[in-house]
Amino acid sequence: MISVVLLGAGNVATHLYKAFLKSETVSVVQWYNRTRASISSYANDVDITDSLDELKEADIYIIAVSDDSISQLSSDLPFSNRMVVHTSGSVAMHDLDKKNKIGVFYPLQTFSKTAEIEFSEVPICVEVYEKENLTLLKDLAKAVGCKPHKITTEQRQTLHLAAVFVNNFTNQLYRIGHEICETKNIEFKILHPLIEETAKKIQQMSPYMAQTGPAKRNDKKTIKRQLKLIEKEEHEAIYKLLAASIKKTHNLTSRPVTKK
Amino acid sequence: MISVVLLGAGNVATHLYKAFLKSETVSVVQWYNRTRASISSYANDVDITDSLDELKEADIYIIAVSDDSISQLSSDLPFSNRMVVHTSGSVAMHDLDKKNKIGVFYPLQTFSKTAEIEFSEVPICVEVYEKENLTLLKDLAKAVGCKPHKITTEQRQTLHLAAVFVNNFTNQLYRIGHEICETKNIEFKILHPLIEETAKKIQQMSPYMAQTGPAKRNDKKTIKRQLKLIEKEEHEAIYKLLAASIKKTHNLTSRPVTKK
Repeated sequence: MISVVLLGAGNVATHLYKAFLKSETVSVVQWYNRTRASISSYANDVDITDSLDELKEADIYIIAVSDDSISQLSSDLPFSNRMVVHTSGSVAMHDLDKKNKIGVFYPLQTFSKTAEIEFSEVPICVEVYEKENLTLLKDLAKAVGCKPHKITTEQRQTLHLAAVFVNNFTNQLYRIGHEICETKNIEFKILHPLIEETAKKIQQMSPYMAQTGPAKRNDKKTIKRQLKLIEKEEHEAIYKLLAASIKKTHNLTSRPVTKK
Repeated sequence: MISVVLLGAGNVATHLYKAFLKSETVSVVQWYNRTRASISSYANDVDITDSLDELKEADIYIIAVSDDSISQLSSDLPFSNRMVVHTSGSVAMHDLDKKNKIGVFYPLQTFSKTAEIEFSEVPICVEVYEKENLTLLKDLAKAVGCKPHKITTEQRQTLHLAAVFVNNFTNQLYRIGHEICETKNIEFKILHPLIEETAKKIQQMSPYMAQTGPAKRNDKKTIKRQLKLIEKEEHEAIYKLLAASIKKTHNLTSRPVTKK
């Protein structure tokens, strides 16, 4: 049994809590948050606290707070020589106070308050300062059914950058698709199967091989026609930049496309 | 039974052929292509031809050739008063020669030669010149298990534009994610669950609600750190433009982010 104290009440903390709850080999002995109210609804199921001085003993302390608060919170912990990890994609492991054994437990997934997650599908990137603590973090990942990946800080930060492209930026393209549909009273829902297939396809082939469409075909007529159709300057700039990027990737001559 | 003649040998034609083959209410009476070789491997299963003069009679002629060739091919057809449709997202219906009954049968999906498609998930956008032909096209869509959507030319072209954003451009973001991973020897596969979840999430909530990440949080520190991490100028430009777009969508002050 791995005992855990959770610190923080955001999306990651909440999803971790739910995943731990389902696991038979993890026990959440306590949940800390600066403001009690955010986690008080869980008070029947787990010991909650807003005081660091009241923190119980556990095998792992998981700091799942905003990036800016991680370092300070790790220094404020009133104990030493225990295992303390953060869950951030971009904060360095060394930002954690070294009075404790430090590490990173980064679930590579997008967490929203309301969307349920199949946690066993989430890759967990783990990192430790002292090698002997690696097994504990790997076991914690496996205890919630996840595949642990041992990576370096640099790899994690690179992965987080790549994640911003494939997740946040992709979602913004969905948003733009939604906006464009709305201008002509088209239900965005019609695009759902296409969006799903686009995401599925790259599990069978590389994104390079999966590319299709006017930019990939260097179909200047269609590109010109589509640029004319675009109503927002912001969308036009994104269209031009990403079409040029596709052409570059596929070695197509990329003379600038102008809107008439 | 709806009888069909297919014209063209690209990805759309091939996927349509396979979908029709599975249907009990559609019969492909002939498959035409300019060059016989591209479809000769199907010669045992269907009558193939490279001569327009040999075209057989059918309820619907489906022109699934490149956008630039649609108009000419429709004029070259040696008959009149039959139902002729194209499958393009962006070509106007009126580009088809009006000696025949014209329409559009646009499957809104991304088709690659090698990726298998669950055709019943594909929305089919239909359009007709004369109202009385609408039922036939809708029936054809239903015959392959698809949902038909009656839309106008303007709506179809808008939908095609939105599709370029959510499919081609999204796929290019996957490609960039892949490139970024490779620079640090990270397997792109680790991002697959995140990519799939990002696509799934917007079936439960709007892309607006689904947004997360540093730009959405207006987390300037992380954005700055990530811009430093980016090695390619092209990726930097895309990062800046899409981060700014997210901030604009979510009404965050958007002072330009500079790379140090």
